Amino acid sequence: MSTTESLQNVSVTTKANVYFDGKCVSHGLTLADGTKKSVGVILPSTLTFNTGAPEIMEGTSGRCEYKLAGSDTWVASGVGEKFSVPGNSSFEIRVSGEPYSYICHFG
Amino acid sequence: MSTTESLQNVSVTTKANVYFDGKCVSHGLTLADGTKKSVGVILPSTLTFNTGAPEIMEGTSGRCEYKLAGSDTWVASGVGEKFSVPGNSSFEIRVSGEPYSYICHFG
Repeated sequence: MSTTESLQNVSVTTKANVYFDGKCVSHGLTLADGTKKSVGVILPSTLTFNTGAPEIMEGTSGRCEYKLAGSDTWVASGVGEKFSVPGNSSFEIRVSGEPYSYICHFG
Repeated sequence: MSTTESLQNVSVTTKANVYFDGKCVSHGLTLADGTKKSVGVILPSTLTFNTGAPEIMEGTSGRCEYKLAGSDTWVASGVGEKFSVPGNSSFEIRVSGEPYSYICHFG
């Protein structure tokens, strides 16, 4: 499936965000219209993230499985696929093998 | 020391580059004039990198020590500081404690 290989005309924050001892690393982006996104990667692990704003995760390399709060079901998501996470919630994500690169769209 | 907190009007490659099992993660950038850079982070570790093109490393968070090929001397480098690495060479870099975020300028 096709994916977003690059994002144009953005401002990138040069300090990396490092979560879970480096199992997740991201860089913040601001688009020309002020929209905030981030690009990041999750290394092989199972992690739980809390959301403030709603998020849409878009895979750009590798694959993951995710489980939303209140669900018992792991769902696979790969390159070019997106999944939505409600605000003020959480989700588990697990990656094995190749790192999972993503774009996180907020709001 | 002041540093480059953000880079404006860039295209960012959404697939992360993962080196040394994730001890170094970077994202490639292309500036409006076609110049290539990357933003990345090195987690606590001692790593050896080979260069193709010459590189200038600029610290944006944390600190590191580096040792150029042919040198016996570790040199400290922190936020807002830069160091140059010749092309077709190598350098060792070590980070302890806080991750070292950087901009890599090529050429």
